[in-house]
Amino acid sequence: MPDAPASAPLTDEELEALNAHWRAANYLAVGQIYLMANPLLHEPLRPEHVKPRLLGHWGTSPGLNLVHTHLNRVIGARGLDAICVWGPGHGGPSVLANSWLEGSYTETYPNVTRDAAGMRRLFQQFSFPGGVPSHVAPETPGSIHEGGELGYSLSHAYGAALDNPGLLVACVIGDGEAETGPLAASWHANKFLDPVHDGAVLPILHLNGYKIANPAVLARLPRAELDALLRGYGHEPIHVTGDDPLTVHRAMAAAMDTALDRIAAFQEAARERGATTRPAWPVIVLRTPKGWTGPAEVDGLPVEGTWRAHQVPLSEVRTNPEHLRQLDAWLRSYRPAELFDDQGRPRPQVLACVPAGARRLGANPHANGGLLLRDLPLPDLRTFAVAVDRPGNTLHEPTRVLGALLEQVMADTADRRDFRLVGPDETASNRLQAVYGATGKAWQAEVLDVDEHLDRHGRVMEILSEHTCQGWLEGYLLTGRHGLFSCYEAFVHIVDSMVNQHVKWLRTTRALPWRRPIASLNYLLTSHVWRQDHNGFSHQDPGFIDHILNKAPEVVRVYLPPDTNTLLSVADHALRSKDYVNVVVAGKQPTFDWLSMDAAQAHCARGAGIWEWAGTEDRRREPDVVLACAGDVPTQEVVAAAQLLRHHLPQLAVRVVNVVDLARLLPNDEHPHGMSEPQYHALFTPDKPVIFAYHGYPWLIHRLAYRRTGHRNLHVRGYKEIGTTTTPFDMVVANDLDRYRLVMDVIDRVPGLAVPAAPVRQVMEDTRLRHHAWIREHGTDLPEVADWAWEE
Amino acid sequence: MPDAPASAPLTDEELEALNAHWRAANYLAVGQIYLMANPLLHEPLRPEHVKPRLLGHWGTSPGLNLVHTHLNRVIGARGLDAICVWGPGHGGPSVLANSWLEGSYTETYPNVTRDAAGMRRLFQQFSFPGGVPSHVAPETPGSIHEGGELGYSLSHAYGAALDNPGLLVACVIGDGEAETGPLAASWHANKFLDPVHDGAVLPILHLNGYKIANPAVLARLPRAELDALLRGYGHEPIHVTGDDPLTVHRAMAAAMDTALDRIAAFQEAARERGATTRPAWPVIVLRTPKGWTGPAEVDGLPVEGTWRAHQVPLSEVRTNPEHLRQLDAWLRSYRPAELFDDQGRPRPQVLACVPAGARRLGANPHANGGLLLRDLPLPDLRTFAVAVDRPGNTLHEPTRVLGALLEQVMADTADRRDFRLVGPDETASNRLQAVYGATGKAWQAEVLDVDEHLDRHGRVMEILSEHTCQGWLEGYLLTGRHGLFSCYEAFVHIVDSMVNQHVKWLRTTRALPWRRPIASLNYLLTSHVWRQDHNGFSHQDPGFIDHILNKAPEVVRVYLPPDTNTLLSVADHALRSKDYVNVVVAGKQPTFDWLSMDAAQAHCARGAGIWEWAGTEDRRREPDVVLACAGDVPTQEVVAAAQLLRHHLPQLAVRVVNVVDLARLLPNDEHPHGMSEPQYHALFTPDKPVIFAYHGYPWLIHRLAYRRTGHRNLHVRGYKEIGTTTTPFDMVVANDLDRYRLVMDVIDRVPGLAVPAAPVRQVMEDTRLRHHAWIREHGTDLPEVADWAWEE
Repeated sequence: MPDAPASAPLTDEELEALNAHWRAANYLAVGQIYLMANPLLHEPLRPEHVKPRLLGHWGTSPGLNLVHTHLNRVIGARGLDAICVWGPGHGGPSVLANSWLEGSYTETYPNVTRDAAGMRRLFQQFSFPGGVPSHVAPETPGSIHEGGELGYSLSHAYGAALDNPGLLVACVIGDGEAETGPLAASWHANKFLDPVHDGAVLPILHLNGYKIANPAVLARLPRAELDALLRGYGHEPIHVTGDDPLTVHRAMAAAMDTALDRIAAFQEAARERGATTRPAWPVIVLRTPKGWTGPAEVDGLPVEGTWRAHQVPLSEVRTNPEHLRQLDAWLRSYRPAELFDDQGRPRPQVLACVPAGARRLGANPHANGGLLLRDLPLPDLRTFAVAVDRPGNTLHEPTRVLGALLEQVMADTADRRDFRLVGPDETASNRLQAVYGATGKAWQAEVLDVDEHLDRHGRVMEILSEHTCQGWLEGYLLTGRHGLFSCYEAFVHIVDSMVNQHVKWLRTTRALPWRRPIASLNYLLTSHVWRQDHNGFSHQDPGFIDHILNKAPEVVRVYLPPDTNTLLSVADHALRSKDYVNVVVAGKQPTFDWLSMDAAQAHCARGAGIWEWAGTEDRRREPDVVLACAGDVPTQEVVAAAQLLRHHLPQLAVRVVNVVDLARLLPNDEHPHGMSEPQYHALFTPDKPVIFAYHGYPWLIHRLAYRRTGHRNLHVRGYKEIGTTTTPFDMVVANDLDRYRLVMDVIDRVPGLAVPAAPVRQVMEDTRLRHHAWIREHGTDLPEVADWAWEE
Repeated sequence: MPDAPASAPLTDEELEALNAHWRAANYLAVGQIYLMANPLLHEPLRPEHVKPRLLGHWGTSPGLNLVHTHLNRVIGARGLDAICVWGPGHGGPSVLANSWLEGSYTETYPNVTRDAAGMRRLFQQFSFPGGVPSHVAPETPGSIHEGGELGYSLSHAYGAALDNPGLLVACVIGDGEAETGPLAASWHANKFLDPVHDGAVLPILHLNGYKIANPAVLARLPRAELDALLRGYGHEPIHVTGDDPLTVHRAMAAAMDTALDRIAAFQEAARERGATTRPAWPVIVLRTPKGWTGPAEVDGLPVEGTWRAHQVPLSEVRTNPEHLRQLDAWLRSYRPAELFDDQGRPRPQVLACVPAGARRLGANPHANGGLLLRDLPLPDLRTFAVAVDRPGNTLHEPTRVLGALLEQVMADTADRRDFRLVGPDETASNRLQAVYGATGKAWQAEVLDVDEHLDRHGRVMEILSEHTCQGWLEGYLLTGRHGLFSCYEAFVHIVDSMVNQHVKWLRTTRALPWRRPIASLNYLLTSHVWRQDHNGFSHQDPGFIDHILNKAPEVVRVYLPPDTNTLLSVADHALRSKDYVNVVVAGKQPTFDWLSMDAAQAHCARGAGIWEWAGTEDRRREPDVVLACAGDVPTQEVVAAAQLLRHHLPQLAVRVVNVVDLARLLPNDEHPHGMSEPQYHALFTPDKPVIFAYHGYPWLIHRLAYRRTGHRNLHVRGYKEIGTTTTPFDMVVANDLDRYRLVMDVIDRVPGLAVPAAPVRQVMEDTRLRHHAWIREHGTDLPEVADWAWEE
């Protein structure tokens, strides 16, 4: 396909107006990087007008400004509902400039008025202490994407487009970001976009040629090779190339029109005529110089069009008169007096392309998703609860039961279409497949007879890319919808850095009243460390909990439901919550049912509690020892250990404490869910030995509880990074988390017990030895473990 | 380009021999999944011959076996030096089968003989307690790649090929793995492969159509779209498609010949004739059924060629007679009596294609890189040390000085070519650009006049993909070379899950005497949390240290050198070490020089020590308070706080302790670098207040030191996840790590000091208030902070 023609139907007047808007945005971007006074250059530029510390990224800004200007045009001309994801989020000055121009900035921050005083404030606050960040950030109107850590723009854009059939999501992808893995994977998201129920994504690949200090790979491919790549991604490229502003404006306007015409035709075909051919969606390839319109040379070295334009092209403006002169000339090259009136207000020509009201990119409610969020319809948990007459009498697969609840949620949102389940090809492996009763797996590629549950309109999203799953869900949530990410526990580390950024985003928005709360990002981590005995060491890692608990305590929550009903209760809570990242770790293997639904809800509401039925304590006095547990497998081991103790050492007063909500262990001044010291002691005692069987790395419990009186008595067992392909019980034995070891720990830690209980200890040791011999002969766990059940 | 012709010059005899080898490997793969006795089916198959627990991945195995068989052929026919990276590492049974067939398994594990007894052992041990893992693993001869966590095969392959001009690295990429971000990014690694000094990578994209439960995206692209994608990646595809074994053997042999002929021609052109055109390297697209030759149907449902073949196709062999019958028929379909003699030894025809000695894929020394490793030539540190007459008198940029040392290492390895520096476009940003004096940046794409330091033969590797950087370096190290990864601290989280797998690999190899130690994986994390004030909140994250310290203590090391000479000393140590993951966190901004080279080396050797010059203690008695620090910025704040205390509270005995090696804080039974309790108390005292200024999340210090007597007196300041775009000093003030806050902490914590020192405390508080006012007016730090210097 040839380049878009340069003869698009722009009148000269339109062209001049677009160029004026672009010049104004460029002027304002430069102003933010450099100026703290004299914003309109009404005076000759002097060193004291310039900030003492020059920060910001100029290189990408003129390209972003060009895109913004032309999105303005087509939004107005076509009455589009559109947002834009600015992948090169480092170009904060650009997006801020455009928001200020269109007025959405002043509406959001009334002290930054659209006049000379406001312009001065806009300039000074940029990257200034107490001001605004240097990147596109939560503080930036119209943004759902920070863009500081590169790679996630396109998956965010797709997430925003899902189930928003009327929305256009433009997405600027820098040629630096395009080299990242997450971005490279997300091109294939178009195989999952339903032209009927989803909106459109328009990728704009911006090849300005350079990263910080290197050429970009895609910018140095021969044109045919780049086109092959984009066609291989399923897109039809439209090229815009140039460095002459008016020529590029014409080409960009034509390219936008071509792209939007094609999108409209594809949508019309699918929606009106039932077409099922996967569209070759357009992609615009925009090739303009880095730092375009900035200084061509500085200190004798080329800058415009090179990597030297990446950040601040003139770095010594306060001290080097030549730099000052160049900055003055650069700013005046935009002819500010033509763009702003004497009071600093943008002139009408500048604003001619700007759409009105909520159609402005800085004011579209889709980019402030909380405005659009509706509570998720959640069914009565009792419908899905498993019956529990007494603890440990029945077994269920917790995630399978949760799957039935999620099927109901999917069914109840069939018309609203505001709930999605994402995961890397693991929905069935994680035993959530009941959801297919209500909806299928989104899929727009070829379908064969043997396939199951593929669905052109499905709301389960499966691709073998945790990055894409995470990006989809973040984009979906940030635009005001709900979802759940189900993932193997070990491999959720793949998105460590992505969730970092999402938590940072949520923390920041909590201080921004105009940003309305969005649905929480919910993880279901199943196929967890203890039940990856079959896949081996590479699949065993519980460290995501540690990772998430390093983050802002206002935002992060970790739940370890020990059985099916507690999982239902926790999931219900997580799906109702807002502005959190909830991590729920729960198994998929048959697990004893310990609590009835009533008991489960009460237990989860408390977050941690004594399981009297499992212990042997006399309520009139303190126990001799506390056996604590968090996680399904540790809970089973603790209950079994308590039973062994009851049998072998009936005189011992044993308390069993189960912790569902891990942050409960923190002091209440460190986390909103933290316990006060008296609450903590009411569970764990101030002075008795506490043997704590924990799902993950044992030192995490110490990190949470180190301030507690009695911490010295806390002895934690957990995953010690020991594993291979073996049996489930051998995993806990290898890591000293098994029931027999826990009994030995009790004997070793309760004062005065070592000598009288020495024979019991020997029985425990002997059983562990029998275990080792047995599994090596039979390959299965000891019958007394495999067939174990709780006895009252 | 058409498919490779089916008329490759294979004789019927060769064809039959290849097929016999393939059938044998398939038989052995099935045997490993199912059998624990009766390996040669000399008896009718009975339930008790079958393992009680069936584990393993059959689906990918026949395809891997096909590739192995044909690699054997071309290695022998062409005298190739080759290894293979098996991306679908879940197919452990396949690679183990082939190693056993070729004899390398028995040479590595003599108890698994190449006869019936050994075959029985091979079968039983697979995925059996005390046996071998279900995936390709460190235990597997010939492997450098676990393949449990998908995404890294191709970058590992490129890393292995770098600087190995005589090596062919084949790389099987599953269609599942191909969906991941890291894999998608790594296709572009061919823009960095030097046809002169590097070997060749032959990607083999195996489209068996399905993942766990879904079709694979690439398998469902129209052929033209897939070809466009591969050409866009810079490859020329060669297709092999089919399900008839003999037809596929012929096509695969032809495809291999075509691919290797092209590779040889490209190498010859570059090496003999100086060609600089970037080659369109071949890629083989192998399209065969998933679970090929396995059961076509089970329980009435199609299995072969569908996702149902992913793991164990017949799951009830012990209890379901029909499953047992199907397994018996399946195994006998390979005609084992034709493949193995009565003693279970492979017959000559089966082994006809197997190469000899070190050319066997399971015996190639490149896949056991420690065999080839040579110590890195490291220069005398004194040449690069900065002169330090007295502490705090001069400033240097630590990483810039390190860059000069690395330049020397690059120069000294110019001929050996066994050292590479990798990073995501940050070498210059991290101020290591001196290396360009010795070598340039690897680059095979277009070069423009304005470019700097691009070098067709360069050994600095820069791509904006942390995943690709990490994969390159891992592959390079695993094949016996050395390297360093320089990265922004916040964004190294992008490779959290990759380093997990590498640590697991290293830990496992420590128990395998035949695996020789390899060079450590060294991270230089600069542009760290405290000096990302200009990029803002998204760039601020010190949590990689927490992440790495969760891993095997035998393997992980964390260093926080406080100045330039200590950085040199730590880097020297890291580059000499083996089998570790060393994390070095060091700044690039001007930093006070505290220690002379002699003092730095002594300090780093101890890992932690008292800085007497900075404190005010009387050596005859215990100090009143310990000010401890780890990290360059915290160290400066502690030294400044000590100076304030000396000025304001001269009677107070202050000890300053600096920690370089973070694991020193652990007990010596938890980490090889840990301190004994007396050692710890000699530094920190058993009972005095310790104010610890730490680089990262403060609770990490508690997690390391919670067992210490005196832990209750430990008060840690660090990064509390508070940040934005602001000044450097405001970052430390916002997180309560600044010198004034530290002085206040001392006053609050030293018994009896609160009342007499109240006026001093007020001065500190007032200074913090002045700071806040000043930065909001001036945008820079208080002059007394900006101009501060240590005074004796």
